[in-house]
Amino acid sequence: MTEEVTVSKIIVDITMSLDGFVTGPNPGPDNGLGDGGEVLHRWAVDSRAPIDERVLEDSLTRTGAVVMGRGTFDVVDGPHGWSDDAGFGGRRDGRPLPHNFVVTHEQPASIRLVDDFTIVTDGLEAALRQAVDHAGDQDVTVMGGGDLCGQCIAQGLADEVIIHLAPVVLGRGTPLFFGGEPPAILEFVDAKPAPSATHLFYRRAAA
Amino acid sequence: MTEEVTVSKIIVDITMSLDGFVTGPNPGPDNGLGDGGEVLHRWAVDSRAPIDERVLEDSLTRTGAVVMGRGTFDVVDGPHGWSDDAGFGGRRDGRPLPHNFVVTHEQPASIRLVDDFTIVTDGLEAALRQAVDHAGDQDVTVMGGGDLCGQCIAQGLADEVIIHLAPVVLGRGTPLFFGGEPPAILEFVDAKPAPSATHLFYRRAAA
Repeated sequence: MTEEVTVSKIIVDITMSLDGFVTGPNPGPDNGLGDGGEVLHRWAVDSRAPIDERVLEDSLTRTGAVVMGRGTFDVVDGPHGWSDDAGFGGRRDGRPLPHNFVVTHEQPASIRLVDDFTIVTDGLEAALRQAVDHAGDQDVTVMGGGDLCGQCIAQGLADEVIIHLAPVVLGRGTPLFFGGEPPAILEFVDAKPAPSATHLFYRRAAA
Repeated sequence: MTEEVTVSKIIVDITMSLDGFVTGPNPGPDNGLGDGGEVLHRWAVDSRAPIDERVLEDSLTRTGAVVMGRGTFDVVDGPHGWSDDAGFGGRRDGRPLPHNFVVTHEQPASIRLVDDFTIVTDGLEAALRQAVDHAGDQDVTVMGGGDLCGQCIAQGLADEVIIHLAPVVLGRGTPLFFGGEPPAILEFVDAKPAPSATHLFYRRAAA
């Protein structure tokens, strides 16, 4: 007899410009996506097409835990960040919000939304393990920043990669890939095009 | 009475990795797409899906003239480059091949396929003008290298942009965008996904 075991997948899920940036220049708590970077998230904020809605809804439904880096935490837990009832994905609809695991070298001095975050200081893989444990039969979404998502892809830690490719050239900002990553071939799964982003779905190719 | 005038469009048409490279490292006449770069063109060479075929065919049909930079010329006119009956797009099917305009600072010492190339030493815009004149009611395709295509996009010279996005991370190579381009928003037209590339179609957004 075989036993079916549901295993959480680790999914990198991030919005990128055509020139590879996930924020404009100077991102930070007072300037979330950086100078001019807000055009990246148009698909999720302003001009949601039905496809965008479905992509967002699917992500919210499957996500049982979120992993993020320190820069992202500083934005979403900052004064202009998430509210009690609008965390990952931007809305709640009565559902519990997924818990967030923050990869950082140093404990933050304070946490505004203290119940929503677990600070992990012993590395990305430790954070992913904690998030997988927490997610139960749901998945773990790595939502940013670019360096953390890029590391997950380059180190083969991501089972799936979702890139929301916005039709913009930013010129400067935070790259998803920093150069020097080991070459990797991903397996294409699907693309869902909409005017404000083409949602690209990949999985890690079989070794 | 209004007269209908067919105007050639200038179309940037290039294959790019997820991390923004159009070749691997060390591209050149003896190493066309650079180290490991041949995976980029899998969609057009090895594993053509019906969608890939149609995309290629559409491009061949509409292209009346090709513009390329010196590095691309050195490859395609080099010893391992195009043959007399296999130029842009890789095949002919009895059709005349489009003529090629090469943007370069210096005349090459010699041209192997001498009838197929016009060397233009007074800049990108001059080359585009000559190519538009030549193309008649067909379009002009800017096929590479990355810097020339990136310049066309950044300077608003491209009416349309086609990016064949290969599901690979190369880590190093020739970037399509060099950073510092002025921010630009493109208008999304269409995406045609296939396993070896998602073909992304954009047009220049109305000013």
